[in-house]
Amino acid sequence: MSLNAADSNFADMLRPLLPNDTLRDADRKYLEESRGRFHRESALLALPRSVEEVAIIVKACASERVGLVPYGGGTGLVGGQVIPDGPRPLVLSLERMNMIRSVSAASGVIVAEAGCILADVQAASEAVDRLFPLSLAAQGSAQIGGNLSTNAGGLNVLRYGSARDLCLGLEAVLPNGEIWRGLSPLRKNNTGYDIKNLLIGSEGTLGVITAASLRLFSQPVAHETAMLAVPSVEAALALLSLAQTHFGETISAFELIARESLNFLQASLPDIRLPFSELPDWLVLIELGLPKSMAGQDCLTRMLQEALEGEIVLDGMIAMSAKQRDEFWAVRENIPAANRVVGSISSHDVSIPIERIPAFIDEGQAVVADIGPFRVNCFGHLGDGNLHFNVFPPAGGRKSDYRDLQAKIQHAVHDLVHHYGGSFSAEHGVGRLKTDDLKRYSEPVKYDTMHAVKTLLDPLGIMNPGAVFSAG
Amino acid sequence: MSLNAADSNFADMLRPLLPNDTLRDADRKYLEESRGRFHRESALLALPRSVEEVAIIVKACASERVGLVPYGGGTGLVGGQVIPDGPRPLVLSLERMNMIRSVSAASGVIVAEAGCILADVQAASEAVDRLFPLSLAAQGSAQIGGNLSTNAGGLNVLRYGSARDLCLGLEAVLPNGEIWRGLSPLRKNNTGYDIKNLLIGSEGTLGVITAASLRLFSQPVAHETAMLAVPSVEAALALLSLAQTHFGETISAFELIARESLNFLQASLPDIRLPFSELPDWLVLIELGLPKSMAGQDCLTRMLQEALEGEIVLDGMIAMSAKQRDEFWAVRENIPAANRVVGSISSHDVSIPIERIPAFIDEGQAVVADIGPFRVNCFGHLGDGNLHFNVFPPAGGRKSDYRDLQAKIQHAVHDLVHHYGGSFSAEHGVGRLKTDDLKRYSEPVKYDTMHAVKTLLDPLGIMNPGAVFSAG
Repeated sequence: MSLNAADSNFADMLRPLLPNDTLRDADRKYLEESRGRFHRESALLALPRSVEEVAIIVKACASERVGLVPYGGGTGLVGGQVIPDGPRPLVLSLERMNMIRSVSAASGVIVAEAGCILADVQAASEAVDRLFPLSLAAQGSAQIGGNLSTNAGGLNVLRYGSARDLCLGLEAVLPNGEIWRGLSPLRKNNTGYDIKNLLIGSEGTLGVITAASLRLFSQPVAHETAMLAVPSVEAALALLSLAQTHFGETISAFELIARESLNFLQASLPDIRLPFSELPDWLVLIELGLPKSMAGQDCLTRMLQEALEGEIVLDGMIAMSAKQRDEFWAVRENIPAANRVVGSISSHDVSIPIERIPAFIDEGQAVVADIGPFRVNCFGHLGDGNLHFNVFPPAGGRKSDYRDLQAKIQHAVHDLVHHYGGSFSAEHGVGRLKTDDLKRYSEPVKYDTMHAVKTLLDPLGIMNPGAVFSAG
Repeated sequence: MSLNAADSNFADMLRPLLPNDTLRDADRKYLEESRGRFHRESALLALPRSVEEVAIIVKACASERVGLVPYGGGTGLVGGQVIPDGPRPLVLSLERMNMIRSVSAASGVIVAEAGCILADVQAASEAVDRLFPLSLAAQGSAQIGGNLSTNAGGLNVLRYGSARDLCLGLEAVLPNGEIWRGLSPLRKNNTGYDIKNLLIGSEGTLGVITAASLRLFSQPVAHETAMLAVPSVEAALALLSLAQTHFGETISAFELIARESLNFLQASLPDIRLPFSELPDWLVLIELGLPKSMAGQDCLTRMLQEALEGEIVLDGMIAMSAKQRDEFWAVRENIPAANRVVGSISSHDVSIPIERIPAFIDEGQAVVADIGPFRVNCFGHLGDGNLHFNVFPPAGGRKSDYRDLQAKIQHAVHDLVHHYGGSFSAEHGVGRLKTDDLKRYSEPVKYDTMHAVKTLLDPLGIMNPGAVFSAG
């Protein structure tokens, strides 16, 4: 079943059904994936203002069998937002659907349209003294609809879960153009199948999310933050377990940083102040976010004593000021920038069963060393089991010299991840970049079940064709 | 498409494929729903010991088009566990699949087979100093497979979520007999559609859950518990909001109790000690579960002062001993028993958007009063928006005198719940008792989408026929 182009005939047919300024030719920015891996020459752009307008557009695409891609902030890293080949598609940008429909501290719910910028959802929640905890590097431009359709993760998954866990209800347009109204704010509702979670994480291939009701939490009023040098990844895990016993769900972050991360920072971004003069093998950044009644207790100090005595921590610094806290976080947050300066050959966003992480890191380094004399920078959200395992040229080398080894390295790492029961895409999704991985690492029963669901809901294959499942 | 009977021919065909003692005629207990609303005369009982045996049984049912019902602890309250009519079915009890396959404090994961008793899952978690927080009245006999297939709620949803939120991965047998292996312990895994959440809460109509990987939490080491008299439901909500600001996620329970609950307790179970000599209009039972570093701070005392000054609490008692804590909980936990002594005409397990609860309770009482001079006992998990709204005869009356009004009352209450954007089944599910409600209150798009998923995964209609969707 081949698709038809969103050509001028199609636009002429659709135009009278919508307000004047809804359709135009897509600008460059809608046609380029941020890292330049996917792009196309032209597309029809639709900028609807309401779910009803979205429904009209999707219905037209269904009736004419035109492919469309729901478009959020365009910040995805796996090419889910650009259809690089096939007939000219329609880009359905939700940017004009950017209203906060309601926010209630008492109910702990915010209802936001899909085109709301994530940072704006956070700000609207803060205005009623509540926290919307989804937080990620791209939050100034990423849109909540895209966050949900990719089940975004980010910094606070350990404590609050990923986008899926924060979503109580959805409004969406199905591939046949029907509106699925499910903006429930309810926390408990056992009335039939969970279609909401099928739409979340489907990367625009099963429907267009147009609005969501989202969970709010109380704002932590105080933070305690520490940088702790640990002797090994095993020790970091023991520290995680100890911290959980001490602090329960108040642990907001538990990040692992390798010595290589610090080397790269030192070399590439010398202005970033490193907390230890002698660089440790492994560093943990831990942060507690404490509610009102638990603030000001110096909780970390007490645990640190126990950890030092147990020799799972070698040395540590607790932030004594907001400035120091910012300095600690600057170390963690600038690692990706330092990595970009060094230039990775192959980057991997993986998750591993937590207790197997030490063995995975050892074996992963060995697997990479078998291919060449590369440097590995492994860091990430240890508390979630989510690691960035990035492979760099040897000191003095350039990534361009090793481009032909990228696929080999990636296969070797992903094979090992699979062997360890992990995931080749912890938070970025499948998009177009990882459709082969999905096929390679999914058992046939799982792959076929997913594909059957796709065929059921989108029999014409118009929704984000080529994402999740490779075209054809 | 009609089903065939699990008769002696079918049993003879299936028997050689399985160990000797796997099949027999079902005993009485598999054929009766606990409240006697659903029962049947006979069924074939299968007691498999492994997922492979389950697959053999389901494949045979598919090939012969025999209906089956996955059977857990049999504690469901909506008749999902008994097929009362149609051809003789197969009852597939998971009780022999009752192994804890693994438990890890470091990973925070327990892997349990579907037939594990919920209390045993809790105990195995406690043995590694971790908490599996799902907790409900039937936990001594309910099985985890049933808890997941019904997305059970219970006492700890406010803090930890319902069964769905606690499940990281599943192993299941699909209606075609294929094994879906997804026992991932990963917290982050964005690789395709969320089939797991489709199986959870599907009440055995989309497959048979055979095992699950489940999230563990750190054990709270100390509790602070209080009974607080509040002037109104609005005040109870203001108190909830204040408590969230003070205590964040450490609030384990926030229960609302009406004066009628206390009246019924006083009349029916006089041994239960009530905490106030003059019964208040509304009572809140709040409990904090504190991790190690936060224990011993008298957190509640400080909030209580603020609440008394703000007049959202009239009077309060903080438990000063484990004994007193038990006494407080005895009040809450004996309400259902007292209700049974009084005898309700119609009971409702509903959820309401939290901020609309005060208005709903007022209007609900008015709606019931329009039908007759009934007493309403409204209590429940206020923090989750989940209320039990139960209607009783006037003082001195018997429920049997009002049986003919049951449907009218239930319709009126459920209509009002729907009008308030609530759910007619907050935690018990649809089963067979509420299939009409599902049809009545679901928009066609939602109902049809669910039905299409059912038809896709179970085209022969063999999986728990008549549950969720009424037969025929």
